[in-house]
Amino acid sequence: MQRPPIKFCRECGTSVVYRIPDDGDTKERAVCPACNTIHYENPLNVVGTVPFWGDKVLLCKRNIEPRWGKWTLPAGFMELNETTLEGAARETLEEAGAQFEMLGFFSLVNVARVSQVHLFYLAQLTSDQFAPGVETIEARLFLESEIPWDEIAFRTTKETLERYFADRRTGRFNIHHIDIA
Amino acid sequence: MQRPPIKFCRECGTSVVYRIPDDGDTKERAVCPACNTIHYENPLNVVGTVPFWGDKVLLCKRNIEPRWGKWTLPAGFMELNETTLEGAARETLEEAGAQFEMLGFFSLVNVARVSQVHLFYLAQLTSDQFAPGVETIEARLFLESEIPWDEIAFRTTKETLERYFADRRTGRFNIHHIDIA
Repeated sequence: MQRPPIKFCRECGTSVVYRIPDDGDTKERAVCPACNTIHYENPLNVVGTVPFWGDKVLLCKRNIEPRWGKWTLPAGFMELNETTLEGAARETLEEAGAQFEMLGFFSLVNVARVSQVHLFYLAQLTSDQFAPGVETIEARLFLESEIPWDEIAFRTTKETLERYFADRRTGRFNIHHIDIA
Repeated sequence: MQRPPIKFCRECGTSVVYRIPDDGDTKERAVCPACNTIHYENPLNVVGTVPFWGDKVLLCKRNIEPRWGKWTLPAGFMELNETTLEGAARETLEEAGAQFEMLGFFSLVNVARVSQVHLFYLAQLTSDQFAPGVETIEARLFLESEIPWDEIAFRTTKETLERYFADRRTGRFNIHHIDIA
């Protein structure tokens, strides 16, 4: 998920040069030698939910790369002009076709290596029937003892699930702040 | 802070067209008619701190637009390959030249209208001497009663400061989840 370097200016189509801009900046940016546009590149947010139904959690089997066929919590890239919670709800609807009520913020997971921040919310399912979208092969409920830990697509999902079940045992849900190396 | 539309392809320099891609997507993206690159545009994270010294909070008087001359908590755009906490610490050092110890996560503020998510951490100052950077006219400590509420640069700062002082009165710091319309 490392993004390739920018080659051409988005404003005028000229080839850009990576250099430190002359405005006091300290980092190399893609700068246009023709129109001087500076192209900033920044981390992306991934927003999703931990959807639960009684003792069970909803996971989605991925129908897209990367990690085709592996299991994940419903989550995806945050879009313009939505809140983190709205994005998390949208992804849960798109990927699982679930019916749910959004509850509180649950985890913030930094994945600095790939410049991503993952944000998960608790979502209480109001039905155990799902209508997975095109990105999902299957949406299924799992007891903790049934979770296919070796078939989980991403560490962000695994770390969030582990904390969900740990909190569930104590009966108190905290907000978790996690860094993945 | 609304970003202008993308005009040219970052991969090949051809003029792009905004349309819904043919891959099942539901949103218009800048698509290159020559090389088919899809240019996704996503929200930006702003990361910063609430730096405190006893009863006082550190604010920075902005030496840059927007809101030149107004007061703000140290904060700025998150960079590639850093965590939210690392970015918040970096901005506090760059803008205030403060010495501090990073403490916990404090607030997540959605500003969907401009596609931003602001994330603030508590930072305990270890000195009351500051060395503001080029983006700051002055860095100064304020008691709650001294805060220039009408001269605060951004609502994200104002809402975070209000919650900081409210929590301080109760002696218990919570994590705050805020949406700004």
